[in-house]
Amino acid sequence: MKVSVLGCGRWGTFLGWYSDKIGHNVTIWGRSGSKNLEELEHTRKNKYLYLSETTKLTNDLDATIDNSDYIIISISSQHLRNLCEDIKKSNYENKTFILCMKGIEVSTGKRLTEVFREILGSKVKLAVWVGPGHVQSFVKRIPNCMVIDSDNKDVTEDVVKTFSSDLIRLYIGEDLIGDELGAAAKNVIGIAAGMLDAVGYSSLKGALMARGAREVSRLIKAMGGDEITAYGLCHLGDYEATLFSEFSNNRRYGENFVRGTLNDDYLAEGVSTAKAIVKLSDDYNVEMPIIRGVDAVLNGELSPHKMLKDMFLRSVKKEFY
Amino acid sequence: MKVSVLGCGRWGTFLGWYSDKIGHNVTIWGRSGSKNLEELEHTRKNKYLYLSETTKLTNDLDATIDNSDYIIISISSQHLRNLCEDIKKSNYENKTFILCMKGIEVSTGKRLTEVFREILGSKVKLAVWVGPGHVQSFVKRIPNCMVIDSDNKDVTEDVVKTFSSDLIRLYIGEDLIGDELGAAAKNVIGIAAGMLDAVGYSSLKGALMARGAREVSRLIKAMGGDEITAYGLCHLGDYEATLFSEFSNNRRYGENFVRGTLNDDYLAEGVSTAKAIVKLSDDYNVEMPIIRGVDAVLNGELSPHKMLKDMFLRSVKKEFY
Repeated sequence: MKVSVLGCGRWGTFLGWYSDKIGHNVTIWGRSGSKNLEELEHTRKNKYLYLSETTKLTNDLDATIDNSDYIIISISSQHLRNLCEDIKKSNYENKTFILCMKGIEVSTGKRLTEVFREILGSKVKLAVWVGPGHVQSFVKRIPNCMVIDSDNKDVTEDVVKTFSSDLIRLYIGEDLIGDELGAAAKNVIGIAAGMLDAVGYSSLKGALMARGAREVSRLIKAMGGDEITAYGLCHLGDYEATLFSEFSNNRRYGENFVRGTLNDDYLAEGVSTAKAIVKLSDDYNVEMPIIRGVDAVLNGELSPHKMLKDMFLRSVKKEFY
Repeated sequence: MKVSVLGCGRWGTFLGWYSDKIGHNVTIWGRSGSKNLEELEHTRKNKYLYLSETTKLTNDLDATIDNSDYIIISISSQHLRNLCEDIKKSNYENKTFILCMKGIEVSTGKRLTEVFREILGSKVKLAVWVGPGHVQSFVKRIPNCMVIDSDNKDVTEDVVKTFSSDLIRLYIGEDLIGDELGAAAKNVIGIAAGMLDAVGYSSLKGALMARGAREVSRLIKAMGGDEITAYGLCHLGDYEATLFSEFSNNRRYGENFVRGTLNDDYLAEGVSTAKAIVKLSDDYNVEMPIIRGVDAVLNGELSPHKMLKDMFLRSVKKEFY
């Protein structure tokens, strides 16, 4: 199949590499002026992998879309709306789009498929691809499981079939709301994990996993999804990569934030997601003390030590409510 | 209150230390001839902590029980039946017993409260105390959350009140079956995590958490508990300590087993629990590929590499079923 990837960051470039490995005809697109695209064009590699000779690189969006059956999008969540406006000018109607990204639009509180459909309409075939997996492990041939979801069972099954392999086992998701929210929210729990690491409370990550997944499952349910989805690959299944791994952007962001060692040019997805989820928790009247606490610390409204203690030791009597 | 702890291993001795710190009058009991008891008597300390001067040490079971309001039991699960036979000879009827241990009786497939009640009757007050927590962290004053459960709400609430502190926040559990099974089963998932570490597949621990908790929740439901309990402190909440920590006996056992570096004198609780759960999964007709796989590897029936690959990459189409 003709597969293109819009976005040439770590994850997008990996998805191009992967699609090529499993036999597709791959084009990777980046904006003109993108440093990542420039590096790939000059060296055919990045820090993690080498591209095959047949993988095309381009900054021509219209031609890329025109020439693809499947279009994977992997860019920063807050830029999706702008990219969709650009896609709208192309011949996009009969393609299958797959969002491989994790976030919520902070200005609207909308899920990424909602943003996409708002601009490109309800008829385009659209799926999400979420769940665990480090580029660093995949390129060493260490397999993992991920999940595909959409609002159309046939699309979900087709994408699973087109992109499954021995390296990435794709499961069929049946709760788009849950899979999108769960995937986005795990980045905020990752920041909380980094904060625990910074204050020497790493042993509270077990409680963080149980209590964090619980509040996310409450939000999913309130928004019309299935509460069990938070405990699937999209959220809990991504906790190893996000809460424990040295590779996790969001965990490192939380740790550096508390230590006061953040670089100015570096922002984790979970920062805007925390803001968006606080808004959703207000709109849907769902108690979310951990994500709310992370947001308050990031906004400088609360000291991380106080937040982390309160977060786990507040006087809730019953475990499930 | 007068609190005694039966068992003077790492966890039992810690619970004596903790009960003393929060103001109880503490006796720690060990069998005559116990090496741990001997060490404590001679040095008043073990590898992890020092006992206060007022903490009593004894090998007199009858006097210990006679002189206690609350009796915590923390011994190896497979020895509970024998200890209960000994307790039966004492003046035990009006005491509150708390099982701080994680396992299933392998010869019968019974939960530990079932074993206890079979011998000591249905009238004795009996609770379980499970969830995450490293001795090594608690003695450094790093707090954690745990859960108390029982078949009697008043007993649960009384135990929570008697043993809660800023160091250990105790939650009220409301699913005894789930809390006992979940706590026992996490040791088997811990062995699986160690096997992943041994073969360099640590990045599959996210999938292990999602898929492992899922099969345990199915068993809990089949046995009459609430499937959500697997995602609480008793099981998922203990995953940090069990799947990721260098301190975890079960994780280390799995790693050493696969590497072929096991010491003969060392057995993890999860080994017998795996056997017991395989029996339960047959009895209740619940599919449990991970725990069954761990048991098969431990019995030499399957190579760990094959098991670990099959475990995550078998062709299940839907994530939740």
